Amino acid sequence: MFANRKTIHIEWGDCDPAGIVYYPRYFAYFDNCTAALFAAVGLPKHEMLKQYGIVGIPMVDTRARFLAPSRFGDDVVVESQITEWRNSSFEVRHRLFRGDQLAVECTETRVWAVRSSTNSEKIEGQAVPPEVVARFSAARKA
Amino acid sequence: MFANRKTIHIEWGDCDPAGIVYYPRYFAYFDNCTAALFAAVGLPKHEMLKQYGIVGIPMVDTRARFLAPSRFGDDVVVESQITEWRNSSFEVRHRLFRGDQLAVECTETRVWAVRSSTNSEKIEGQAVPPEVVARFSAARKA
Amino acid sequence: MFANRKTIHIEWGDCDPAGIVYYPRYFAYFDNCTAALFAAVGLPKHEMLKQYGIVGIPMVDTRARFLAPSRFGDDVVVESQITEWRNSSFEVRHRLFRGDQLAVECTETRVWAVRSSTNSEKIEGQAVPPEVVARFSAARKA
Amino acid sequence: MFANRKTIHIEWGDCDPAGIVYYPRYFAYFDNCTAALFAAVGLPKHEMLKQYGIVGIPMVDTRARFLAPSRFGDDVVVESQITEWRNSSFEVRHRLFRGDQLAVECTETRVWAVRSSTNSEKIEGQAVPPEVVARFSAARKA
Repeated sequence: MFANRKTIHIEWGDCDPAGIVYYPRYFAYFDNCTAALFAAVGLPKHEMLKQYGIVGIPMVDTRARFLAPSRFGDDVVVESQITEWRNSSFEVRHRLFRGDQLAVECTETRVWAVRSSTNSEKIEGQAVPPEVVARFSAARKA
Repeated sequence: MFANRKTIHIEWGDCDPAGIVYYPRYFAYFDNCTAALFAAVGLPKHEMLKQYGIVGIPMVDTRARFLAPSRFGDDVVVESQITEWRNSSFEVRHRLFRGDQLAVECTETRVWAVRSSTNSEKIEGQAVPPEVVARFSAARKA
Repeated sequence: MFANRKTIHIEWGDCDPAGIVYYPRYFAYFDNCTAALFAAVGLPKHEMLKQYGIVGIPMVDTRARFLAPSRFGDDVVVESQITEWRNSSFEVRHRLFRGDQLAVECTETRVWAVRSSTNSEKIEGQAVPPEVVARFSAARKA
Repeated sequence: MFANRKTIHIEWGDCDPAGIVYYPRYFAYFDNCTAALFAAVGLPKHEMLKQYGIVGIPMVDTRARFLAPSRFGDDVVVESQITEWRNSSFEVRHRLFRGDQLAVECTETRVWAVRSSTNSEKIEGQAVPPEVVARFSAARKA
């Protein structure tokens, strides 16, 4: 599967009094990395939302394992890829490296989501358009 | 096991352009709820760190399932409890309710962590003091 | 003028590697305090937005002076009031106290904002409804 | 004076339900830009702290004027420079551009801060080392 790599500079404000990344910040990094993954195949999130009439790709299940801490001033690299497409959802995996060391591993299940046509307060899944999946297949081969 | 309940008012700045909580914010909520859980048995985090000479109770593994979205202005209740004590680590479970509805469920594995005596840059696990565990047992019976 | 007081518990994740509040977090506190100020006169933000058809009360100018640091575990109190109403904007002042000590002072200029009727991408000011101002006058006398 | 330019990609999670940047996030951007400004003259913050034995360059006064909103997906450029050196403090100015448009302007007063030698809980100002100032003068001429 196509993988995108994004370098993240860990900022002072991302770190806690122990001097290491405050772990909720990693989830913000990973959310940005998923956006970057779509942008890398030609689907920047703000355009993708307009083009397909979706409200977003909200998270339904995420898990992260923290193997080693990172500190402010570190440059880390996150390798992101979609590991599975289902009908209206998909799986993403992120691996954050500090040098050669795998420091954090994260999996995500996200939904291709639209506002409900019967209740605009509700958000519901919709089939992922085949052309979106095709972009990732094409990128893999490139 | 002893459970603590914390009410959280969802703020404008916790929400994203879809109008629902930006999911990394839930992890900040849960981190605060774990701190509140310890405070509820007489161990406010800032005092606990000093008293036991630990650098914190860093996360090693966390998973959250998002069953229903929450919106700014909502008041949600998080029920938190320690579900298992191991030697130098422990498991926490949070359940976030929106009214009667279970909206988010989260599990955490955290470590009772000290600075390494041989390398102050390193953080390592240490046995959880029995008196800490005892406080939760006592609270359960109360 | 009517003043609202809000107690804030400073969390681990609000603090930086120096062990004190990461200053952008104060602005999130103050944004929440402005929301609490309106809620205190019967205008919770999420209802106020619907009722008056506004997109928010965005910031146009804010300044904060940091007189003393706060640390995680501290409980601070923020006293908030509207100091001036103009046509489509208003001034808010927040004073954050740590015990008796004034620790942070902040001023805000905000706009009563609607989506432009000619360009939905644009946000523009609109006259603050007299009944909104009246609620604060009434609260002052109460 | 030497100016550094930093491009910032505005992320989904930086934006609020109105679809524009949640203003406290701008202060995090600017804090990162000040760090980038020092890094640009050869003083990455994590090394500068160690080298000079300071706890940081905490904020004592900051003001921002928001002239135009930015949205997720936007790439903005922040131009940062030190506008004045005093004995133990200094002034920074940031200007955030969205295309050609000045969208946010921010000023900061920061302190060159060390832990008090008589009370490690206290943070106090210390004279900025002349070699730090000299690096900016040299960069200006370069």
